[in-house]
Amino acid sequence: MCLLHGIGPEISTAVMKIFEAAKAPIQWEERNVTAIKGPGGRWMIPPEAKESMNKNKIGLKGPLKTPIAAGHPSMNLLLRKTFDLYANVRPCVSIEGFKTPYTDVDLVTIRENTEGEYSGIEHLIVDGVVQSIKLITEEASRRIAEYAFEYARNNQRTSVTAVHKANIMRMSDGLFLRKCREVAENYKDVKFTEMYLDTVCLNMVQDPSHFDVLVMPNLYGDILSDLCAGLIGGLGVTPSGNIGANGVAIFESVHGTAPDIAGKDLANPTALLLSAVMMLRHMGLHGHAKKIETACFDTIRDEKVLTKDLGGNAKCSEFTADICRRVQDMD
Amino acid sequence: MCLLHGIGPEISTAVMKIFEAAKAPIQWEERNVTAIKGPGGRWMIPPEAKESMNKNKIGLKGPLKTPIAAGHPSMNLLLRKTFDLYANVRPCVSIEGFKTPYTDVDLVTIRENTEGEYSGIEHLIVDGVVQSIKLITEEASRRIAEYAFEYARNNQRTSVTAVHKANIMRMSDGLFLRKCREVAENYKDVKFTEMYLDTVCLNMVQDPSHFDVLVMPNLYGDILSDLCAGLIGGLGVTPSGNIGANGVAIFESVHGTAPDIAGKDLANPTALLLSAVMMLRHMGLHGHAKKIETACFDTIRDEKVLTKDLGGNAKCSEFTADICRRVQDMD
Ligand SMILES: CC(C)[C@H](C(=O)O)[C@@H](O)C(=O)O
Ligand SMILES: CC(C)[C@H](C(=O)O)[C@@H](O)C(=O)O
Repeated sequence: MCLLHGIGPEISTAVMKIFEAAKAPIQWEERNVTAIKGPGGRWMIPPEAKESMNKNKIGLKGPLKTPIAAGHPSMNLLLRKTFDLYANVRPCVSIEGFKTPYTDVDLVTIRENTEGEYSGIEHLIVDGVVQSIKLITEEASRRIAEYAFEYARNNQRTSVTAVHKANIMRMSDGLFLRKCREVAENYKDVKFTEMYLDTVCLNMVQDPSHFDVLVMPNLYGDILSDLCAGLIGGLGVTPSGNIGANGVAIFESVHGTAPDIAGKDLANPTALLLSAVMMLRHMGLHGHAKKIETACFDTIRDEKVLTKDLGGNAKCSEFTADICRRVQDMD
Repeated sequence: MCLLHGIGPEISTAVMKIFEAAKAPIQWEERNVTAIKGPGGRWMIPPEAKESMNKNKIGLKGPLKTPIAAGHPSMNLLLRKTFDLYANVRPCVSIEGFKTPYTDVDLVTIRENTEGEYSGIEHLIVDGVVQSIKLITEEASRRIAEYAFEYARNNQRTSVTAVHKANIMRMSDGLFLRKCREVAENYKDVKFTEMYLDTVCLNMVQDPSHFDVLVMPNLYGDILSDLCAGLIGGLGVTPSGNIGANGVAIFESVHGTAPDIAGKDLANPTALLLSAVMMLRHMGLHGHAKKIETACFDTIRDEKVLTKDLGGNAKCSEFTADICRRVQDMD
């Protein structure tokens, strides 16, 4: 197993401790993924990290800070590209004990991660007029639609909603939508619906409980996955997985590196821990996943040992110890 | 004054009654704006509606249903285009007495209404590969930024936030953002901030009270304006204005035509009424605007005479009469 982190060692340590308590059969290989300048001046993932990923296929990534060196690429984008991680998956489930305006969120956003508005192709047409190109391909659209339906089927989900603006971008979102419809034909056990992105946003904040699996192009996923994370309490409690072909995947917490509290034993490891739980499920280790997830939710529901951002005043290590204890008690 | 509606006569009648009760000095000219096929087969606004708008400059538009005739354009898009209505303005304010998960929303979304992802330019590159073009111009970006800062200044607002993804679309959103920054220089009395769209969505559902005036490109505005409408109770209570140059403007309710309850005296006229209030302010009729707005909010706060969607069982005409009575009592 390849453990990737830039900074954020505290929460990685917490996850490793809980995994140990749960006797999860994972061996960690720690690698720094912060991009370096390769031959020809191109930014790249350090070879040791790349080799580790190629060997292990699966990674867990802590929060990274994209260095502000001129031209340094977003680490997120670089990792998605390097390992062709075409699906970003974010389960958003209301957490009992952590109060937000919503109590019954239980949905998953599945974002196409490789193309769309993120093509990077832009031109200056004439002075003062710029165009950006949104690229939608049949192949990537079919691939993400298939992923969404497979996910729904394998995770006891009942419906997939394609989110689009094909009323405006008739050709590009139209192609995306057509592929979703085609793929839906092969999954008659899963209900398929289509909705405009604006309508989804409107309905989402009014009553998120209706939504199940949502699949969409890159930018819409960027927006909707953050919106949905907000509904359940923010990025500090929302797990995320980036899935590629042939089992390759990187799971990650998507919150920032919180430099103000770094090294003070105050961080909340929940998002990384739940991402690690997604990783266990991805590997078929459902028993270990369930155990750790239950312990984590029990600790939060109990409201006795909570980190500050969760409304308590426990240290990261105390929160971690409480989860470890529960995991061990389950044996 | 030019009153535009496709269907939705009930709520238009309600608005006219309340205006009469408030002695608002408006003469209505009713026109049907449903597009017709002009010479050469191009869809256009009927000449009588166009003439009325050209003469009066200001319109109030009820809910329209875009006919499903093949190739029929969206009426919203056609109206924006015909009258170059470059700014869509949506004040979203929590309404006391109408329960939603949020109580302290008080913000305004200002959406660039003419370009961006709505350029309509799309190509099939090769089989299975489609591109859509997002067009951002210096002129339209400066114009909308100026509108936002003028709006903030004239409406006692303290800050303008530019919403963007210039980390991804560096040239197009970059240009938009640069123009916002430049314009901000001329409005030192208004605070200027910049935020990523995904972060805005995340923060918005966690705590909308921090936001004030938000300005953004077309698609982001489409999304965010609906999201924010959801926070205060949906499109049934959210007013909207489309602003052009030289005082030209169309105010409208953006909800649907609700065919299931049409003609049954059950519709809620609030969105159209509050849009009409925006119209009065646009015309400088602040006294009348305040009176009608106060009466409408008082009726809702009282919770005695509410339409079904607001949680009561009053008819549209009863709700309207209650507002009229309050307006008259203010004299
Ligand atoms: C950091 C940024 C490039 C990224 C994106 O826009 O995709 C982020 O918002 C995300 O969702 O991972
Ligand atoms: C009907 C549709 C074309 C329109 C849009 O996408 O702009 C609508 O959502 C709106 O916000 O007015």
